[in-house]
Amino acid sequence: MYTFYNVFKCLPLIELSIKWNARPSQPYGQQHLNEPLLDHREGQLFLTEAFKVILEEVLCKGTDVNEKVCEWREPEELATLLDLELREYGEQQHQLLQRVRDVAKYSVKTNHPRFFNQLFAGVDYHALTGRFLTEALNTSQYTYEVAPVFVLMEDEVLSKLRSLVGWAQGDGIFCPGGTMSNMYAMNLARYRAFPEVKLKGQWALPRLAVFTSQESHYSVMKAAAFQGIGTENVFKVNVDDRGCMITDDLSEKIELAKSQGAVPFLVHATSGTTVQGAFDPLEPIADICDRQGLWMHVDCNYVTMFVIRADSVTWNPHKMMLTGLQCSAILLKDTTDLLKRCHSADATYLFQQDKFYDMSLDTGDKSIQCGRKVDCLKLWLMWKAVGSQGLEERVDRAFAHTRYLVEKMMKREGFQLIGKPEFVNVCFWFIPPSLRGKENSPDYQDRLSKVAPVIKERMIKQGTMMVGYQPLGGRVNFFRMIVISPQLSYQDMTFFLDEIERLGNNL
Amino acid sequence: MYTFYNVFKCLPLIELSIKWNARPSQPYGQQHLNEPLLDHREGQLFLTEAFKVILEEVLCKGTDVNEKVCEWREPEELATLLDLELREYGEQQHQLLQRVRDVAKYSVKTNHPRFFNQLFAGVDYHALTGRFLTEALNTSQYTYEVAPVFVLMEDEVLSKLRSLVGWAQGDGIFCPGGTMSNMYAMNLARYRAFPEVKLKGQWALPRLAVFTSQESHYSVMKAAAFQGIGTENVFKVNVDDRGCMITDDLSEKIELAKSQGAVPFLVHATSGTTVQGAFDPLEPIADICDRQGLWMHVDCNYVTMFVIRADSVTWNPHKMMLTGLQCSAILLKDTTDLLKRCHSADATYLFQQDKFYDMSLDTGDKSIQCGRKVDCLKLWLMWKAVGSQGLEERVDRAFAHTRYLVEKMMKREGFQLIGKPEFVNVCFWFIPPSLRGKENSPDYQDRLSKVAPVIKERMIKQGTMMVGYQPLGGRVNFFRMIVISPQLSYQDMTFFLDEIERLGNNL
Repeated sequence: MYTFYNVFKCLPLIELSIKWNARPSQPYGQQHLNEPLLDHREGQLFLTEAFKVILEEVLCKGTDVNEKVCEWREPEELATLLDLELREYGEQQHQLLQRVRDVAKYSVKTNHPRFFNQLFAGVDYHALTGRFLTEALNTSQYTYEVAPVFVLMEDEVLSKLRSLVGWAQGDGIFCPGGTMSNMYAMNLARYRAFPEVKLKGQWALPRLAVFTSQESHYSVMKAAAFQGIGTENVFKVNVDDRGCMITDDLSEKIELAKSQGAVPFLVHATSGTTVQGAFDPLEPIADICDRQGLWMHVDCNYVTMFVIRADSVTWNPHKMMLTGLQCSAILLKDTTDLLKRCHSADATYLFQQDKFYDMSLDTGDKSIQCGRKVDCLKLWLMWKAVGSQGLEERVDRAFAHTRYLVEKMMKREGFQLIGKPEFVNVCFWFIPPSLRGKENSPDYQDRLSKVAPVIKERMIKQGTMMVGYQPLGGRVNFFRMIVISPQLSYQDMTFFLDEIERLGNNL
Repeated sequence: MYTFYNVFKCLPLIELSIKWNARPSQPYGQQHLNEPLLDHREGQLFLTEAFKVILEEVLCKGTDVNEKVCEWREPEELATLLDLELREYGEQQHQLLQRVRDVAKYSVKTNHPRFFNQLFAGVDYHALTGRFLTEALNTSQYTYEVAPVFVLMEDEVLSKLRSLVGWAQGDGIFCPGGTMSNMYAMNLARYRAFPEVKLKGQWALPRLAVFTSQESHYSVMKAAAFQGIGTENVFKVNVDDRGCMITDDLSEKIELAKSQGAVPFLVHATSGTTVQGAFDPLEPIADICDRQGLWMHVDCNYVTMFVIRADSVTWNPHKMMLTGLQCSAILLKDTTDLLKRCHSADATYLFQQDKFYDMSLDTGDKSIQCGRKVDCLKLWLMWKAVGSQGLEERVDRAFAHTRYLVEKMMKREGFQLIGKPEFVNVCFWFIPPSLRGKENSPDYQDRLSKVAPVIKERMIKQGTMMVGYQPLGGRVNFFRMIVISPQLSYQDMTFFLDEIERLGNNL
């Protein structure tokens, strides 16, 4: 049923391939002006050849445990290897194809089963198909006119995501990343509290106050700076050992803000903090928000939560759900068209009011952007491929792997957990033999803080795996292992522990 | 040199294809827990089959003048055809492949030579290759650690773009769209004028004032609302008939703002307005900004300009340069690290200060985003393919086509230009025979305003072409034809005029 015949019908590939390689270099632009500047057949041939390179280098080799995760080069050397300079004249097709190979070769293989470095990892081929199709179709998500399929699809996907949160109705939009989704929440919360802000600006408002935990994502600070609220008006609520917000302290911080003359309007809670994977206690927070009349936003990094009492939720399928960057949604409980009222600018050249179809389908004015990339297709196609059940199974597997890793870690000398993981984040110190039993030495913390950076440098230079580290609160540098990719097996967990030992045992 | 051998080495495609089609439906997740959840070979096979569909449906048929630009369906019918619902269980591969076909079929073909509807159109195959490679590599642009190639590449591309503006040094960053780039400019301008805004918020500042022309992009209003400046603090400067800012009125509006107690800080000029393609007079505006100490931003929609006196420039290669959405850069003359000082949050989990390489390469903290999509590769690869000379030729050709279209239009009865185009935007009314010579009838404007919507409806329903219309200022609905794609030929211009006549002659 699926053979090369289809593709041959449209592009006699082998024949062209011969012509192409035999053709002498032709300066760009010697065509006649009354003919198109672009040779579609040649372009499609290049794309097809490049597709094979991508398949081989990025998706086959790049996911093979026998290949390196990264091919480290010093910046100066890499710049020379890549020959980045943009010049007056174009290059030949075989040179360009080599550039595709080079970019692939020296890029980090985030699809590799030993890439544990960020909150994304691994590849889903149906999502990737959706991304290729999105790129080829190249449209913008603003009107039904130019994006009929994607306007309806975004609506359906958002509705499904809301149902997971527990809302039968509501609103929402896909944003270019989680920070942008969090910024939407901040703007909506401010607008609900002070609708005049849109017209008059923050200048006409009192000093505002936002509340979030000490371990929430730094995007809250970025949002406060960017949106004119000010970073000192973000009140950082204390957390417990696990990194969860202490609600008594939230109440106290609210009173503190009021005593300074600031007006509280938003609590930014986190379900799955960036480092420890901690979950703020949502029910007590919702009680406080209810009592105080505050907007409750929940930043769901990894998986969406049943948080029916929140006003808004950020969910990032580009993390644990493997859709690929970028895929983030802001979900709203609101049914009063707040999103559009807050953001609309009513541009007549785009949102004409005399169209022949239902103009409520032109959803672009809900966005702060004009042109907006289609981010729903990759998630939709993946969901169609594996079903809700398949997505759930991925999360279950990540939990199973995490439990396995934690058990093994507790049995190995030299691995010291930072508390028991609440989620898929396993935070730990590796104590090299030379430091074991020296916990009371005055330079212990200082020496321990230098262990993770050296192990990290070694793994990157050898290309065997990648995992992140950081200091946090009073704790010196520790590793943050994230078990997120469904490609993983128990063998990968064992490899991880062995490799940390191998790289760090002589420190 | 390039045969199917390479791809076979990695994936025995035909053999798998047979297995795949013969295999009975298998519920997702019956694999053992100690094996990866993902079958790479099956995934790669699907991706390869989908690639062929994309090639055939989107890139061959989708660029063929004998095929439709769009396949109009009423929203209810389309929703049914697409079967959008997300369910509990996954589907079989052949069903999913049909979904890829369906999404392609009912999507608008923005690569089609008769798509004139937006400020983007057409496909560049090298840029598209860059986009596929970006998607497959799936990394985030924040650190050299996870994006070594793209950190260096973004720097090189930005440097090249700055050189086109006329700056030997400076700064910049790729943003998810032109609106976001404009927002960066507004935030930087505010921060330079009042650095305390980052910490204290707009609350501690006086009322601010922004100046932009009546025909600038609506993103200025969106930015003012989103960033806490307020839309009423955007002073709209009058334009002349062509849509260019009147600088005398700019001076007057600045005095008006001051008289109201507002503090001017930013002039947002436009090179190539959205509808008319008008160019604000940059030198006189720069004089005023110099005298008043205001930040001068230039929003370059289509092509970058030599605007050495500006403080910042937005340039959107995803428009006239055909890179595909999203590709927008904010360019800065600043050499004092303003971008980072304004936006940094110093997250220790990402921007560790004890790395083994030059940490100034971790450019992510310049961004308001955390995870940031790689947007430089598509532009870089296209530039390598055609050279600066090839990019210039595209612009030259667009101008040549515009001149040709305007000449033909002036000779045809019923086509009435809205002034002489300054750029590639050809704005005009089509006067159907029934309205010709009736300019003095009391209902002329009203009847004329209804012409464009009907012609638009007809062209969409027949799928022959797509072009935008809008009212503007005191003018009733007129068409905006954008000659942007290098695929076009003079024949396409003739077709355009014939088709408007065919669709509108009986109105």
